[in-house]
Amino acid sequence: MPTTLGELARLVGGELRGDARIALTGASTTDVARSGEVTLADHPDRARAITASLASAVIASPNVDCGGKPSIVVADVHAAFATAVRHFRPPRVLARIGVSAQAVVSPAAKLAAHVEVHPGATIAEDVRIGPHTTIHAGVRIMAGCTIGSGVTIFPNAVLYEDTRVGDRVVIHAGAIIGAYGFGYRQVDGRHLLSAQLGNVEIAADVEIGAATTIDRGTYGPTVIGEGTKIDNLVMVAHNCRLGRHNLICSQVGIAGSTTTGDYVVMAGQVGVRDHVHIGDRAVLCSKAGVSNDVEAGVEMLGAPAVPLRQAKLQMAAVAKLPEMRRQFRILQRQLEELRGGVDDADGRLPSDQAA
Amino acid sequence: MPTTLGELARLVGGELRGDARIALTGASTTDVARSGEVTLADHPDRARAITASLASAVIASPNVDCGGKPSIVVADVHAAFATAVRHFRPPRVLARIGVSAQAVVSPAAKLAAHVEVHPGATIAEDVRIGPHTTIHAGVRIMAGCTIGSGVTIFPNAVLYEDTRVGDRVVIHAGAIIGAYGFGYRQVDGRHLLSAQLGNVEIAADVEIGAATTIDRGTYGPTVIGEGTKIDNLVMVAHNCRLGRHNLICSQVGIAGSTTTGDYVVMAGQVGVRDHVHIGDRAVLCSKAGVSNDVEAGVEMLGAPAVPLRQAKLQMAAVAKLPEMRRQFRILQRQLEELRGGVDDADGRLPSDQAA
Amino acid sequence: MPTTLGELARLVGGELRGDARIALTGASTTDVARSGEVTLADHPDRARAITASLASAVIASPNVDCGGKPSIVVADVHAAFATAVRHFRPPRVLARIGVSAQAVVSPAAKLAAHVEVHPGATIAEDVRIGPHTTIHAGVRIMAGCTIGSGVTIFPNAVLYEDTRVGDRVVIHAGAIIGAYGFGYRQVDGRHLLSAQLGNVEIAADVEIGAATTIDRGTYGPTVIGEGTKIDNLVMVAHNCRLGRHNLICSQVGIAGSTTTGDYVVMAGQVGVRDHVHIGDRAVLCSKAGVSNDVEAGVEMLGAPAVPLRQAKLQMAAVAKLPEMRRQFRILQRQLEELRGGVDDADGRLPSDQAA
Repeated sequence: MPTTLGELARLVGGELRGDARIALTGASTTDVARSGEVTLADHPDRARAITASLASAVIASPNVDCGGKPSIVVADVHAAFATAVRHFRPPRVLARIGVSAQAVVSPAAKLAAHVEVHPGATIAEDVRIGPHTTIHAGVRIMAGCTIGSGVTIFPNAVLYEDTRVGDRVVIHAGAIIGAYGFGYRQVDGRHLLSAQLGNVEIAADVEIGAATTIDRGTYGPTVIGEGTKIDNLVMVAHNCRLGRHNLICSQVGIAGSTTTGDYVVMAGQVGVRDHVHIGDRAVLCSKAGVSNDVEAGVEMLGAPAVPLRQAKLQMAAVAKLPEMRRQFRILQRQLEELRGGVDDADGRLPSDQAA
Repeated sequence: MPTTLGELARLVGGELRGDARIALTGASTTDVARSGEVTLADHPDRARAITASLASAVIASPNVDCGGKPSIVVADVHAAFATAVRHFRPPRVLARIGVSAQAVVSPAAKLAAHVEVHPGATIAEDVRIGPHTTIHAGVRIMAGCTIGSGVTIFPNAVLYEDTRVGDRVVIHAGAIIGAYGFGYRQVDGRHLLSAQLGNVEIAADVEIGAATTIDRGTYGPTVIGEGTKIDNLVMVAHNCRLGRHNLICSQVGIAGSTTTGDYVVMAGQVGVRDHVHIGDRAVLCSKAGVSNDVEAGVEMLGAPAVPLRQAKLQMAAVAKLPEMRRQFRILQRQLEELRGGVDDADGRLPSDQAA
Repeated sequence: MPTTLGELARLVGGELRGDARIALTGASTTDVARSGEVTLADHPDRARAITASLASAVIASPNVDCGGKPSIVVADVHAAFATAVRHFRPPRVLARIGVSAQAVVSPAAKLAAHVEVHPGATIAEDVRIGPHTTIHAGVRIMAGCTIGSGVTIFPNAVLYEDTRVGDRVVIHAGAIIGAYGFGYRQVDGRHLLSAQLGNVEIAADVEIGAATTIDRGTYGPTVIGEGTKIDNLVMVAHNCRLGRHNLICSQVGIAGSTTTGDYVVMAGQVGVRDHVHIGDRAVLCSKAGVSNDVEAGVEMLGAPAVPLRQAKLQMAAVAKLPEMRRQFRILQRQLEELRGGVDDADGRLPSDQAA
């Protein structure tokens, strides 16, 4: 049964602008919305897309011109639109199953009340799990791990021995926590693995993306600080200590023993070398290659990374380098003329063929 | 029992050049082939390698000089050589097992006829699977997924809730489809996860590599278009919409809400920022860092990426920059001499130590 | 019960410098060590950190000044400190379990004596496993694989059909060995997958990191040479042949049919194109993009990669390019003045706005 625009305005707590009787059957983003659906507009620059959209109505910020389309104006567009989406397409409610008989739980593991363990998960000896935590299918929790309350571990993630996981942590599918650090020394022409006596400690409210790997420390813990969020396919090497509330985007690699302050941001595919420190609120732009300490608040770009303004000047200069090179040849010729052809053998830019 | 060159020529439908009675015992690539084996030559530049090879015979393109080695000439070398390999080393035929008693299949899942479900796989409620689809060991199919016919999902891949998979799709081991998008906003110093109300939709004939991750959309689907092939360890972020018949090579990262046309190619380790569009048949060369829209048919290289010709000019100019810098100092000195030493404090390139 | 410094000195076989009666309760790295703990100092440059540390004693190299802190001097600091860590925090000893009844082992698989197979692992037909090998939970070993002795395969790793694994190999969690190579040819506008008739062969003493992927060869094997160590999230494409004792760091990508000699080192996020050869003991620095053969012993940096010295000169020159550009404009102006303003329209570097 459709919902009217008026009903939806009441549901999301917004101000109605247009005919309250318009019937709506769904909520979709602007480029794919069809007639009969409501869409969203969170920024004035969306105005043209809204006008072009097939959507019948818009949930919009106060500062967006919806070009006459019926709308519901709200302060927090995303919260309101999420409510609309949930209204039209109610999220699946998973039945609580408790500890599945098809999971393998060691008798020497201690599970609190209200723990969900899905079929095919394995929980080894001396593991402790706090209340209201969900362990999905195929998760492997090796011996001695400690897991807090309200944690979710998605299918097929693996926690090696003695991993510690704080409250409300989310670990996505295929993440591997606590594998061996990549440290070797050469003896008689063979690489010998370093000690693997540490573990991984993940503080509260951390989220870890799919297929991300965090290696155990050599002698002590590799640490992920409270509230830090890590995207998919990220590598955090042994002995790293990340601070609180970092945002580490996909495919970042952080080499061994590197540390970060709080609120550090690393964009996609950044690489940071071992044994450096990235200061509070520093930002590493995507694909940056960082091989030195970065001071607090500094934004870095490029490989090798330099502060943003400097990197942009360098990149602009490189973009103009072919033309500068052409100009340079003209300058050389002119100077040569002025000098009357002296020093022919010296001071001439080699031609492209010769260089 | 060996096969003669004559028998092999008939088997692959090629033209025999040499003694039909030569006995062959295997088929191997040129660098590892031993005496008694047949190898392949698909290009004239393989001639020297063929002459040097220990192989006793060659399956070759018409335009390859085999240096007198007995050969079978065919139009499609790879099809013929694959036939030869299969002849000498017949591929394993897996017994059909139906739905293993050691898999965990929800009674609320609907499986068509001729579906194979291997031991240790888990299939949750409201999942639908089409005929002739194979679900390998340890695959996790969460609630509400829809999977077409003739699909193969290799071991330990994970499909989050409501993933849709078209006909004949291949998903390799460890791929994670539908994990949460990496979208946050900061409230009171903490990062709050955006809505995760969308899903992932994979069209027909898509292939997805091992340990590749494709995140669910915020409100609607992340889309992989028909016939698109994705290699291992690729990241496709939330809300992306890839077109048809793209080729996305290993370790590529595509940030949120980016879209591509048809027949786009991205080489290894490319990074594409969020909210851009890559036009039909565009080619992003390996390690390119793309932060703007790319027009149809354009080939891009570098980080930041620019059109190929421009990138090559820039790279060539950078390669010669140290020499240009040396020449530049000479020019400065010469000009200074001409000007009689005026303006000493100005217009001088700082020395390396000072710069 | 605490251990005295004297007892610890005897345990690690070192020379005591300080009061033998000091009581110690643990062993930690310098930055996190507390009072009552012993720490380590492996290099003279650690002296200041040691002085600042709360640790009560130090296990130190002979050449480290411990600033008066009680110490135990040893030749091999890491071996001695690992002994101390194990003394204070004895590693978990896993009970041997044999072949778990909750694993799924094909009756057509052949397991030697003293093989451990954990719950939830699946071992398909015609697999052979040597003695003293451990298969952890959720590992998938597909048909026809051959695995040596003393091998460890961590949870949820996947071996596709016919993978061969040498003695003492370690494969970490989530690694995917033997998925299809990413080779296609276009026929009638669709990408057709190449033959997948090869396999992966891993020689003795190889170690493979978490979530690393190694694709099978087209007609023959993809090969990882003896003693080679591969970190997490690495991609080794089809038909590659890596030599012996390579060190391949995290997030490296090696494209199809590329080969390496012995003792090659690739640092993090390196990319190597297909069909090239990297010579013995070559070093590819982190983020290098290599698209040509590299000769033995050469160190390469940059994208495109060039020999290290050259790359550093280029990078230094680029860093100074904005200043050089400014100087260049001055030179142009001065020369123009000397020439009396001739040729105004030519030979002038465009201003930033115009360029």
